[in-house]
Amino acid sequence: MLRTKNFWVIGGDPRQAALAELLADDGHGVHTFALEGAEGMECEKTLEGVRLADCVVLPLPAADGAGKLNAPLSDEVCDLGEILEAMRPGQLLCAGMAGPELKSQAQRRGILLRDYFAREELAVLNAIPTAEGVIQIAMEELGITLHDARALVVGFGRLGKALGPRLRALGARTWVAARSYDQRAMAEGMGLEAEGLERLQEWLCSFDLVVNTVPASILGVEELAAMKEGVLVIDLASRPGGVDLSAAAALGVRVIWALSLPGRVAPVTSGRYIKDTVYHIMEELEG
Amino acid sequence: MLRTKNFWVIGGDPRQAALAELLADDGHGVHTFALEGAEGMECEKTLEGVRLADCVVLPLPAADGAGKLNAPLSDEVCDLGEILEAMRPGQLLCAGMAGPELKSQAQRRGILLRDYFAREELAVLNAIPTAEGVIQIAMEELGITLHDARALVVGFGRLGKALGPRLRALGARTWVAARSYDQRAMAEGMGLEAEGLERLQEWLCSFDLVVNTVPASILGVEELAAMKEGVLVIDLASRPGGVDLSAAAALGVRVIWALSLPGRVAPVTSGRYIKDTVYHIMEELEG
Amino acid sequence: MLRTKNFWVIGGDPRQAALAELLADDGHGVHTFALEGAEGMECEKTLEGVRLADCVVLPLPAADGAGKLNAPLSDEVCDLGEILEAMRPGQLLCAGMAGPELKSQAQRRGILLRDYFAREELAVLNAIPTAEGVIQIAMEELGITLHDARALVVGFGRLGKALGPRLRALGARTWVAARSYDQRAMAEGMGLEAEGLERLQEWLCSFDLVVNTVPASILGVEELAAMKEGVLVIDLASRPGGVDLSAAAALGVRVIWALSLPGRVAPVTSGRYIKDTVYHIMEELEG
Amino acid sequence: MLRTKNFWVIGGDPRQAALAELLADDGHGVHTFALEGAEGMECEKTLEGVRLADCVVLPLPAADGAGKLNAPLSDEVCDLGEILEAMRPGQLLCAGMAGPELKSQAQRRGILLRDYFAREELAVLNAIPTAEGVIQIAMEELGITLHDARALVVGFGRLGKALGPRLRALGARTWVAARSYDQRAMAEGMGLEAEGLERLQEWLCSFDLVVNTVPASILGVEELAAMKEGVLVIDLASRPGGVDLSAAAALGVRVIWALSLPGRVAPVTSGRYIKDTVYHIMEELEG
Repeated sequence: MLRTKNFWVIGGDPRQAALAELLADDGHGVHTFALEGAEGMECEKTLEGVRLADCVVLPLPAADGAGKLNAPLSDEVCDLGEILEAMRPGQLLCAGMAGPELKSQAQRRGILLRDYFAREELAVLNAIPTAEGVIQIAMEELGITLHDARALVVGFGRLGKALGPRLRALGARTWVAARSYDQRAMAEGMGLEAEGLERLQEWLCSFDLVVNTVPASILGVEELAAMKEGVLVIDLASRPGGVDLSAAAALGVRVIWALSLPGRVAPVTSGRYIKDTVYHIMEELEG
Repeated sequence: MLRTKNFWVIGGDPRQAALAELLADDGHGVHTFALEGAEGMECEKTLEGVRLADCVVLPLPAADGAGKLNAPLSDEVCDLGEILEAMRPGQLLCAGMAGPELKSQAQRRGILLRDYFAREELAVLNAIPTAEGVIQIAMEELGITLHDARALVVGFGRLGKALGPRLRALGARTWVAARSYDQRAMAEGMGLEAEGLERLQEWLCSFDLVVNTVPASILGVEELAAMKEGVLVIDLASRPGGVDLSAAAALGVRVIWALSLPGRVAPVTSGRYIKDTVYHIMEELEG
Repeated sequence: MLRTKNFWVIGGDPRQAALAELLADDGHGVHTFALEGAEGMECEKTLEGVRLADCVVLPLPAADGAGKLNAPLSDEVCDLGEILEAMRPGQLLCAGMAGPELKSQAQRRGILLRDYFAREELAVLNAIPTAEGVIQIAMEELGITLHDARALVVGFGRLGKALGPRLRALGARTWVAARSYDQRAMAEGMGLEAEGLERLQEWLCSFDLVVNTVPASILGVEELAAMKEGVLVIDLASRPGGVDLSAAAALGVRVIWALSLPGRVAPVTSGRYIKDTVYHIMEELEG
Repeated sequence: MLRTKNFWVIGGDPRQAALAELLADDGHGVHTFALEGAEGMECEKTLEGVRLADCVVLPLPAADGAGKLNAPLSDEVCDLGEILEAMRPGQLLCAGMAGPELKSQAQRRGILLRDYFAREELAVLNAIPTAEGVIQIAMEELGITLHDARALVVGFGRLGKALGPRLRALGARTWVAARSYDQRAMAEGMGLEAEGLERLQEWLCSFDLVVNTVPASILGVEELAAMKEGVLVIDLASRPGGVDLSAAAALGVRVIWALSLPGRVAPVTSGRYIKDTVYHIMEELEG
C-alpha cells in the first residue's frame, strides 16, 4: 500500500468530491479547492499549499469549454495557469483529458503531467457505469421488461463487452453487430448472437432496444426507417454521435444520446476509479 | 393455439390497454370499454355486446377503493354490477384480485369467475418486472454502481429468487437473509451468500442496498439503526409494509416503499403476462 | 456456533470419510468406525465408546442391499442392530434414507433417529453436484461444446432449477419441458425457454443433449425415435428410471443413467452438506 | 452465403473429419484424402482431382513431427510436397500452423497459402472448448464441486476471458492474477476478483484450483510450495509450459498439463470453427 500522501483535489463535479472523500478515507491528507458546492466540503481559500502536495488532481475534463478550470461546484472562475503557477517543478499533476495548452504549460514548468483519462484501465472501468446507465435508461423508457426484450448492441469494444453480457444476464435476447470477425467470435464466446455490420438494415427490424457504441455514423436514415415501431435507440458515441438525429426526429424514432454516463449515474464509483488510477500512476512513478 | 375468440377488455390502466392490443395482435376479436384514455383506443359506448363475449377481462385490481370498476383511464364511473348484469350465465369472467362482493355476485348469476392474479404462474412472472423495477430504482438512487455494491435481499420467495441472481449478474455482492434452511440452500445454489434472519442487525452494517421482500415487520428501529450511512432500503412488502417508516425517518435512513412495480415499470409486459394467464385459464376450461 | 461435541461417524463411502474430517476440522471430537479403507483414517475397533457420543452419524444410505450397515470402505460386516445396541436411550442418531426396520428399532430403544436425507435442504444442496455431474458427463461424451449446443431439461424441480441456469451460463441454448405453468414461468424468469410436456416428441428433434429429471416414464419409444442422430440422453430419475432403455438400445440412442451423482463426483462437498444438515438437526433439537 | 464450392479436406484428426462433414452439410462438393480411419469416410485414392478444388484444407497442425502430412487417421505417409505438386498456381490452400518449409514451397509454386490458425478469430473461438476442457478436468479430478470452490486463473488474455466468467457462473469464487491494470479492470468488470502477479505466492494458499494461461514460467517452486494441500493445478501454457513440473512432483502438487484441448474435448465444434474461418478467408479473397 501507499504511504500517507498529501493530495490536492481541485475543481470538478461530484466525482471529484467523492475522490477527495475516498482519499481521506484511505488515510491521506487531502486539501480541496473550487469544490465549495459539494455537500459538507471545506475548501482551501488559496492555492498556497499546493507546492507541498505529493499529487494534484484536476477534474475530468480538466478544462471547461472556455479553457478555464472545470469547476461546476464552485462560483469562482479559475485559470488552469494559476494552478500550475502554484506548483513546483517535478510535482505530479494528474488531469483528465488534458488539452494541448495544459500540456505545454506543464512541460514548460517542469511539472509531471499525467492524463488519467488516457489510461486504458480507466476506460475499461468506466464501461461498467456506462453499461448500468444504459440499463437504467432502457428500464425507464421502455414499457416492456429487458427480460425477453430483443436488444442489439452495435460495436463490441469496451462498452459492448460490458453491456452485452449484462443485457443477456437480465434475460434480454441480445445481438451484437460488429465489423471484425474477432469481435464477433468474442461476442459468441460470451453467449451473445453476433452479426456483421454490412446488412444491418435488413435485420434491424425486430429489436426493441438498439444501443450504438461505435463512434461513427452508423444509424442513418435507412437503418432508422427499418426499425420496429416503439424501438428505443440509445447512442453512446461521443460528438458528433452515431445516429442521424434529424432523420430520427422525422421518422418518429425515439433516440437518447447518452454522454458521460459514469459521472451522472455513479459519481462515487467514478471517483473511486479515478482514485485507483491515480494510485497506479503514483506506483509506477515510484516503482 | 386457441381459435379466434371474442374478448371484452374492461377498465384498468396501461396494462389492460396493452392486453387489448396483444389480444388483437393474436387475431382475436377485441372490444374495449372504459379505456378511452389509452392512446389510440376506440372503446365501446355500451356494454350491450358483452353477452356475446367468449371471455370478459376485468383489470388488476378489478375494483377501486370505492368498490367501483377500477378505470383510471376513463372518466366514467361504472359499477361492477352493471358488467355482470350485461353477461349471460356460463360466460367466463377473468378478474384480478376479485373481492368477495364480486365473487358472490358472479356466483349468484352463474357466471364463471376466475381470478388470474390468484394463479401462481402470474405471481412468478410478475417477479420479473418487480426485480427490474428494484434494479432501476437502485440505479437511480445510488451514487455507486450496482457492480461491486453490497446488496442484501431479505426473504427468498418468488421475489428474492428473481432479484438475487439478477443483482449478482450485475456484479453486486449479494447476500440473502432467509429463515428456512431450504431457502438458504436454494440461494447458495444460485451463487448467493445466505444467512438466517435471527441476528440480522449484527451483520446489516456493511450493505449499500437492502431490499425487503418479506410481508412482515422485519426492519425495525434496531435493524435500521445498524445500517451503514447512505444505505438505500427498498421495501416490496405489501401493506402494512416491512419497514418501520417513522423510525427510518427519525434515523435518516432512505426508504423507498415500492408497490405494484410490474404495472408501473413494464405495463406492456404485465399485460402480456395477464394475456398468457387468461389463455391458460381458457385452455384448462376447454381441456 | 455449536460447542465442541463428540461425534461417531460409522460406515459409508468417501462422503462419510470427508464428513469425519470436516467435523474434526471444526474442532469436534470425532470417532470413526467401519471406515478403515479411507486414506489415513484411524478407526475404532469396537463400538464401546458410542454411548458417550452427542451424535452418531450413519451413512447415506444407512443400510446396504442386505440390510447390513452400508460400509464399502470396510471389510467387516456390521448389523445396524449392533450400533443401536451400543447406544443409550435419548441419544441422537442421524442416518440417510433410514428404512422401516431401522426406524422401528430406534423407536423401541428410545433413540432419537433423524433422517438427514429426508430434509429438503439436503435435497436442494445435492442438486448442485448433480448438475455438475451432468455437465461433466455431457462434456466427456459429446464431441461438441456445451456452448451453442441445444439442451433440453425435462422437469423443473430442484434438479432442473440447478441444471438449467448452469447450462445456459455455459452458453447452451437451453429449453425446459415442464407440465405446470408455474414451473414454466419460473424457468422463463431464469432466462430459459419453456414448453409443456404434451407434445414433447414434436419438438425433441433438434436437441444435442436431453436430461430427464422427472421420476416417471417420460422418454418412451416415440420420444426416443424422434431424437436427432448423435443425441446424448442423461437420465437422473431413480429406479425404475424415466427412459425406455431397451427402446433406446434398439434405436441406437445413447443413454446414460446417472444415479447418485453427488457422492460420485464430489464426495467431499457431499460430506460437507451432510455435516451442515446434521448441525441444523442438532441446533433445532437444542433450540 | 457462399456459392457451392469444391473442397479437398486432407489429413488430420477428427476435427478434419468433422470439417468435411460440415462442408458437405452446407451443400459443398467435398473430397477427402488421408482420412480413411474416420468413421464412414470414403476417401479419394489419389490427389489427381485436387487441381479442380476451389479450396484445399490441410489439418491443424499441417505437418507432423517429421515434417510429413499430419494424418493420424491414415496409414499412408504423405509428403506435403506431393499435395502442393498436385495443385495449380493461384489455388487456395488453407493450413493450420503452416511451417516455413510449407510457406516457401507454396510461394515458389504460386499457391495462395493462408494459415487459418494464425487468425485471431479462431484463437478466440478455440478459447471456448479450452475453457470447457478445463472445467471438465477440474470436475473429474476434484472431490469438491466447482460451486463454492476457490479458483485462481493466472493470466487474462483470450483463455482467461473465456474461463473466468464460466467458473464464476458455476459458482466458483474466482480470482484472476494479471500483470496489467487493464486486464485486471476487465476482469473486475466481469465480476471477478483481480490481483497483480507480483506477490502471487502470498495469497495462493487458499485456492482449490489454479489454472495457468500465461506462456511463461509462472508457477515455480515458491508458488507451488505455498499452495494448499489437495490443490489441482491445470497448465494451459504451450511448451515449455508455465509450471515447474519437477518441483511439483517433489512437493506432491497435482499438475495437469492440458494442451490442445479443443481438438480433444470437442472435435466437431473445433471442425466447425475451422470451417467458419476458412469461409471468412474465402469471403475476404472474393470480397
